[in-house]
Order: sequence, then C-alpha cells, then structure tokens
Amino acid sequence: MKIAIAQLNYHIGNFYQNSERIITHIERAKAEDAELVVFSELSVCGYYPHDLLERKEFIENTQRAINKIVKACSGIAAIVGAPTINESQRGKKLFNSALFIENQTVQKIIHKTLLPTYDIFDEYRHFEPNKVFETIDFNGHTLALTICEDLWDNQPTNNSFAKSKMYITSPLEELCKQNPDLIINIAASPFSFDQEGNRKATLQRNAAEYQLPLVYVNQVGAQTEIIFDGGSMFISPKGEIVQEMSYFEEDFRIIDTDNTSTKSLQTREPAIAKINRALELGVKDYFEKMGFKSATLGLSGGIDSAVVAVLAVRALGSENVRVLLMPSKYSSDHSITDAVKLAKNLGIEYQTIPIQPIVDSFEKALNPIFDGLPADVTEENIQARTRGVLVMALSNKFGNILLNTSNKSECAVGYGTLYGDMNGGLSVLGDVYKTDVFELARYMNRNEEVIPENIISKPPSAELRPDQKDSDSLPDYAILDEILYRYIEQNQSPDEIIAAGYDAETVKRTARMVNMNEYKRFQTAPVLRISSKAFGFGRKMPLVAKYNL
Amino acid sequence: MKIAIAQLNYHIGNFYQNSERIITHIERAKAEDAELVVFSELSVCGYYPHDLLERKEFIENTQRAINKIVKACSGIAAIVGAPTINESQRGKKLFNSALFIENQTVQKIIHKTLLPTYDIFDEYRHFEPNKVFETIDFNGHTLALTICEDLWDNQPTNNSFAKSKMYITSPLEELCKQNPDLIINIAASPFSFDQEGNRKATLQRNAAEYQLPLVYVNQVGAQTEIIFDGGSMFISPKGEIVQEMSYFEEDFRIIDTDNTSTKSLQTREPAIAKINRALELGVKDYFEKMGFKSATLGLSGGIDSAVVAVLAVRALGSENVRVLLMPSKYSSDHSITDAVKLAKNLGIEYQTIPIQPIVDSFEKALNPIFDGLPADVTEENIQARTRGVLVMALSNKFGNILLNTSNKSECAVGYGTLYGDMNGGLSVLGDVYKTDVFELARYMNRNEEVIPENIISKPPSAELRPDQKDSDSLPDYAILDEILYRYIEQNQSPDEIIAAGYDAETVKRTARMVNMNEYKRFQTAPVLRISSKAFGFGRKMPLVAKYNL
Repeated sequence: MKIAIAQLNYHIGNFYQNSERIITHIERAKAEDAELVVFSELSVCGYYPHDLLERKEFIENTQRAINKIVKACSGIAAIVGAPTINESQRGKKLFNSALFIENQTVQKIIHKTLLPTYDIFDEYRHFEPNKVFETIDFNGHTLALTICEDLWDNQPTNNSFAKSKMYITSPLEELCKQNPDLIINIAASPFSFDQEGNRKATLQRNAAEYQLPLVYVNQVGAQTEIIFDGGSMFISPKGEIVQEMSYFEEDFRIIDTDNTSTKSLQTREPAIAKINRALELGVKDYFEKMGFKSATLGLSGGIDSAVVAVLAVRALGSENVRVLLMPSKYSSDHSITDAVKLAKNLGIEYQTIPIQPIVDSFEKALNPIFDGLPADVTEENIQARTRGVLVMALSNKFGNILLNTSNKSECAVGYGTLYGDMNGGLSVLGDVYKTDVFELARYMNRNEEVIPENIISKPPSAELRPDQKDSDSLPDYAILDEILYRYIEQNQSPDEIIAAGYDAETVKRTARMVNMNEYKRFQTAPVLRISSKAFGFGRKMPLVAKYNL
Repeated sequence: MKIAIAQLNYHIGNFYQNSERIITHIERAKAEDAELVVFSELSVCGYYPHDLLERKEFIENTQRAINKIVKACSGIAAIVGAPTINESQRGKKLFNSALFIENQTVQKIIHKTLLPTYDIFDEYRHFEPNKVFETIDFNGHTLALTICEDLWDNQPTNNSFAKSKMYITSPLEELCKQNPDLIINIAASPFSFDQEGNRKATLQRNAAEYQLPLVYVNQVGAQTEIIFDGGSMFISPKGEIVQEMSYFEEDFRIIDTDNTSTKSLQTREPAIAKINRALELGVKDYFEKMGFKSATLGLSGGIDSAVVAVLAVRALGSENVRVLLMPSKYSSDHSITDAVKLAKNLGIEYQTIPIQPIVDSFEKALNPIFDGLPADVTEENIQARTRGVLVMALSNKFGNILLNTSNKSECAVGYGTLYGDMNGGLSVLGDVYKTDVFELARYMNRNEEVIPENIISKPPSAELRPDQKDSDSLPDYAILDEILYRYIEQNQSPDEIIAAGYDAETVKRTARMVNMNEYKRFQTAPVLRISSKAFGFGRKMPLVAKYNL
C-alpha cells in the first residue's frame, strides 16, 4: 500500500493555516498516487492546546476545519488528529482522536487510550481514555491505528523510588486480537537530547513484537517551550527502520508498505548538533507563531549571551537582532571588546549604554534609607535590574522581543537576578547546563570563529563586584552540572548522589539552592526544552514546601 | 460512636511538624474518649506536594512519619491521609490513600478512586486510581471511607461546550453494596467564594441519597496559592448539617454519630467577609511556611496597594510591614497625602523616595538611542520599573518580602508593567476583580476609617502620564469585570457574551486583551486563589496560540 507521510509544523489554534497546510498535502499525496495520507496527533488544532480545549469556540473551530479537510478527501483516504466530543453522559467531554477519512466522510474515529499525564504532558486534564478497540479495514488491509503514547505501554513510571510500568493497558495487544497487518501511530513526540534512542527502541520493539510493519508520523516545530523534532519512520515487521524522515524540518514522503528493504536513513549527528538545531527552531517558531519579527538582548561579553546572539541571528537573520552593551564600573575591558567583536562578526546592530550614572542615581535615592549599611547582594541586583530596565525600554520602544540568556545551571541554583538578567520573553538556554553552553559555543565555532575565542576561554563571571568569578559562590560547573543532572533529571535523592561519590557538603548545598529558588523559577520566561526534564510546567514543585535539607 | 474531627493546618513536606500536630490531636482525642480520630487528605505530607511525590526521600520521609503516628494510636483508632506505594508492576507508582490505624497497626488502606485533574488539581499526574471497593469494620460499625473527590462523582465536566458528568464511576455506590452505616470523607477542598453552596449541597446529597450519616473532615490553611477553608461537617442521614466547624482556622470537635439532632452551625457571613479572611490567611501562611517575617510594598495612594497594606498588617502585624512611597512628577498631591494617612492609620513604617531623578537618568542614557522619538508606553514602563527596582532593593537589603498589589482585572487585560508593578513574591489581589477590591476596602472600613475615604472614592489612575485615568484605556470596571467573569470563570465564548447583551466591540477587545497577555501572566507571582478560576496553574493557556479574535 502506498502511504504518504506528512510531517508538518502546526500552530495551536491557527485553524486556517493548519487546515490549508493539511489540504495542500492531501492534494500532493493524491498527485503522487498515494492511497492514504497520514498527519500527526491533534494536527487540526495543534498540540497542545491546554485549556483552550475547554472553550466552546475552540471546539467549534476544530469541527469547521475538519469539515473542510473531509471535503478535500476525494480519491484518497486521510488520517488526521483532532479532539472529538465524548457523546456519553459520563467522563471527560473530549477524546484525543484520530479521524479516518475516506470518500469524503469520516469513516471511523479512534480514540487515544494511554493519556500521558507526567512531565510536560497533561492529557487526562482534558481527555477521557479510550476503552474500546477497533481496527480499520481499508483497501484490503486491516489497520491498527494508534495515537502516540498508545505504543508506550511499557513506559516506566516517572519516579525514583521504585520503577514499574506506568500503564495497565496495552492498546496494541488489544488491537492485535483483530489481526491487523499494519500499525499506524500518529504522534506529538517532543525532542529531548538525552532520550534519543528511547523513541526508536520503543517503536522498533512494537513492530518486532507484533511482527507488523509500523508507520510512525510525528510532527515538527516548536510550540512555545516544547520542540517537536519530526523524524517520522517506517519500520519493518522485524523491527528495522526502513525509512527515516528529516529532523527539525517539515518533510513529506511516499512509502510502500510492501517494500521493507529499501533503507533511507538520516545522517547521525552528535547530540550537541541536535541541541543547536532544536534551539534555533525553538527561537524561530516562537517569533513566527507569536507574530514577532525582531529580537534584542544584552551582550555582556560572556558566553551565555554570545551563544543566544548566534542562535537569534541564525533563527531570525542578522537584520532582526539588535543588542545592547551595558558596561558597569566592574566590567572588564575585554568584556566590551569581546562583545563588540561578536556583534561585528554577526553583523548585528549594537549600542552601548554605561549603567553607572543610573546605578548612582538609585544608590543616591536609597542612601537615606540604607543609611551606611554595608554593600551586599542588593547593590549587585541594582546593577542587573538597571540593565533589565534598559533592554526592556529598547524592547518597548522598537518592538524587539527580549531574549533571556540564563543557562540551566544558573536557573537551578538561583544565580541570577529576578527582574534583572532573568527578564525576557523566552529563555533560550534555560534547559542547557553551563558545560553544554561551552560545548555549544565550540560547536558554533567549528568552521570559523563566530564567537571570539576569549569569550569561551575566560572564566565565567557576573561582573557585579570587583574581580568576581562564578566559582566564588558556586562549585565548579563540571561538578555542579553533574550533581544537578542527578538531582533534577534523575530525581536522585541527596543521599544517593553522595553515595555515588560526590562531596556531601557540595551535594547538600546544591540541593538546598535548587529547592530555595523555586520562587524565582516560578516567575521566569518559558524555557526552550531540550532535555527530558526542563524547568517550567514539566517540573512543578510546591513553593511553600519544607524540603528537609 | 464518638469520633474526633481534627481540622488542622499542615505544611507540605514538613513531616516533623505535621506528625507532631497529628499526634497531639490523637492524644487529645484519647483524653476526650473518642473511639476514632479523623485527619484530612494527605495530612501526613501536606496537600499538594506536586512533583515531590516523584522523589525517593519524600516517600521515605512520609513512611517514617506514618510509623511515628501509628505508634501513637494505642487505645484509639485513627484515619490519616498519605501517599502509599502501588505494589503492582503496572500503573502509577502511588495511591492517594486513607490509612485506617487501629491497635498501633495500619489495618486497612483505602485508595482514592476519583482523581481530580482539572483546574488546580493534578492528581492523575502522580496517582493510580483505585478500582477495588472495601468497607471497614470497626467497633460494630461498617465505615465507607472515601477521599474528597470520591463523593463528587456527579461533578460536571470542566468545559463550556456541552456539560455532562466528569466521572464514570461512583465510589459510594460501590461501597454501599457492602451496607456501611457511616460515610467518612477526608478532604482537601479549597475555598472559592463563588462555589460556596456547592460543597454543602454535594455532601448533603450524598448523605440523603444513601441515607447514611456523613463525617466530612477538611483541612485548613494556605499552601502558596491555594487556600483551604476548613468547615468540616457532620451530616445526618436526611442530609441535614448537624455540626459545622470553623472556617479559616484550626478546629477540633468530638461528635456522636448516634446523635443527629444537635445543631451547631457557623454564623453565615457575606462573601466579601470570607474573601477578606481567606486573603489574610493566605498572606499569613505564605510567610509562616516560607519562614519569612516581614513584608514590603509600594504604597501609591491607590486602592489596590491600600487594601494589600491592610491585609499585610492584619496577617503579619504592623511592626512587620514597611512601605515605600515613590511619587513621580505625575503623582497627584492627594496620592501622597492619602498614602501617608493610610500608613499612619496602620501604624506602619513608611519612607518616601521621589523617582524623578532616577527616571531622568534612564531617559538621559537612552536619549542617544531613542533619538527624539515620541514618548509612549516605554516611558510609562520606565517609571513603573524604577519603582520595581526600588522596592526590590528594600526587600533585598532588609529581607522584607515584596507583596504584589495587582488586581484580577488588571492581570486579565495586561494593564500593568512586567518587571515593574507586577513584581512581588506573592500576588495578594490577583484573583480579586477591581469591583471586589472596592467592596473589600469598604468592608475593611465598616467599623472605622482604616483606608482614607478619598482612596476609595477617587477615580482609579496609574498616574504614569498627566491626568491619566484607567478609564482612558479600559472599559468601566463594572462592565469590564462582568465580561471578564463570563470569559474567564464561565469559559463563555465572545459570541455568547455578546448575545447576553454586551457591546460587541468591548467584548472582542476585552477577550483580545486577555489572550494577548498570557505571556505577562506566565511570569507573575503565585496568586492567592479565592474564586473557582484563578490565574496561575489552574488556568493553563498556550502562549504561541492563535486566538482567532
């Protein structure tokens, strides 16, 4: 059977654009003689609409878009993803569904059984799980149509104290009682650099276990924080990947399900290259889907803002990025020259505003109240916040969106000033540990020196007091990042981390810093997610909790 | 049967304090000859621990606290709430459980069946739903032990397009097949002023339908945003409330389940009085549970900051509140005199810092870049952000926590400056519409003029440009708040609101303002929740969505 796989970039709630894009690819599939064209999960409305799913106008718009798409399906069958209404008088009011359209009619609606509700996923909030299993007969074939998580029944639970399997039902096991000859899975599976092999292994296991060919259709593109990476696949009944589609870009391909020998795979890339592409797509789609054009940021001469500037230029074009240099009396000469050199390398507009006169005016105003008290973090924060006001003024006046440049290590331990350098509409590096920011910078320089070498090689400093170094207040990033990874991504307890050979005091101090800075992270911009555990709504911690450390 | 109801205030993760408090009340119940003492849902660890439930140390600490509590149960039985491990190899790894303890042993563990996963509730994220129903035999009685939502099987779905019942199972129907003679429900049911009657009606319906007495044990106290109001009850088999415990404070009472005639009810209060108490408790518990002592805020002479100042003083004491007056060249004389008068009425420390010199230094620094461009919202934001930096400096230097003073109407339409007046550790009024802020102010003045009358009677103004009034950019609050209530609380579509008789342009403009300001609310402080739909994690909207208005 000839099936077209449409791996597209959707926009939540943009029914006009989504349905036009779907219909264009239905036409293309027809032109290329496909019998069936498959689109990804919730493709009609975009994944994930969150509480828009509770609103009448959203569901009505979805239905209108479905009607348009159904009309386009003459001479071809199609599978699209959309929420559909649960007509029962009990249970959540919606299903997360796959619509099988044939002869300009919705012939069958298949509902998702396993509703991911962990990390960034929140599907049981809106959807009723499916309990009835039906295959689809089409052109002499019997299709087992599944939706994303439905193939992840062996998924381990999301906790660190005792692992087992998260779900009690196996949708594919149920469907296979009806002897299908092809598995189709429509998905919304986001990118995480540390889960690379997991997705393929899961899909391959399913195909091999049931000895059936498997068509996997993922989406691509970023929806605020969440970056979908594509990589749709066709897998043989032996569990071999026969076709693998592009990553981080739209793709369209016709596969022949009877031919499981031709191999067409993507070139393997190192994780850092994928992170780089993911972040670039994340920035690009945020701007495009929000209707923004241009970005700004403060260029400090440090590595974080340098990497963000490069990503912004790659995503938006150098003509759409303008930066501000805001030296203080503690800024070293090289900070300014390094920043200027970077701006010139990138061909972006830059301007310089020394902040000292403003800081002086704050300190003068506060003097009667502070009354000779010694300088402390207050004065450091005033500098960071003065810069925050200046870049926001630029943003307000010219409509450039401020990109936040904090990295994951800083966000984790609260090494940053709320309403200062933590400002921004989008956090570009908030899920990238400092050691990976260095790796990213080196990767960006792999062909030519885009980021001046001195920015990469000098020791990190916030430059908020004389001769300050990050290492004055934080453990070395190499150690810190390992502890943080165990504590945050792996949910290890401090005792377990200490048992793994890390210094007890450093572990406890690090965990304490992470815990006591939940309040700061509560107020930060959405963070582009590239790992399996990013800060944001995928990691919800109570603020008033006692953390017992 | 003599049952003690312990309506206590727990602290998430504070196992030492929670278990001490539970044991103290076990002793008290023993001393008062109760046969059984009942504590509320997840009382051992506090409700709701969110992703702490995924961590090993949290579950281990819970188990240790349970062991301590079990030992205390000699000569009395007790029911406490705690997460327990799902020993099955499939399904989420935890249950939300009620432990029935007798003879210093956990005799039975009952799991929650209906896991609320909507609005602020997120229980399916961590818990496996119960599927087995068992009553408990105790002292000649048969108890139907249920957990909170288990009695809410008739709860309507949380959407506006077609209502039906949210759940497909009725735990009480199942349990009643075993002929219990008493229903016990341990709860974590938060306060919402607009859902007042709903809770009582639900409990009364259950008692009457199954013709059984019902003991309802709720908790009290705030956990960051969520305010639990107590109001535990004993209801007769006819559905009459026999005993009703205190609201917004701890309470302890012995009831005799055989005596369903003595009435002991709470005095009815108007909604505004309850909102006032809820907010006071919210502020108090936030500080107590975070380990903070003192608060600060900017006193503008307007009504929002005045009401927050009063609440702060009531919650923390006048000696723990200090305020900053930060007049600009646009501040009217009465703003300053009104603010001073209020500070004096409240007996709080106040200081004044005119912001003009700082604003001038910002404008001078930006002048070369702005290059003669006309003044716009940029310059207004610089004033608000200058104030933001000043109060945060005070906060950093003296350890006072900044209280945010934005009201729900402003938050809804984005009438506020991010990193300026939207700063703060806790949003006190973010769930109170402007019209209700006025009502709250009048309520606070019911016995004497705490808030100077002029603050209440003058037209609201941000005072960021000459003669500015809120009504220049916003519809009248009376109209605005009604439209917002329909759009936000009731999830009505703009078409429905227009059909209800509101001006089409005003409705569309309002909805558009709400939608385009999701990005601002994403970055705001936790909001004390007093309604059925507050901003924050109970209303998750996608940022990059297209809203079609």
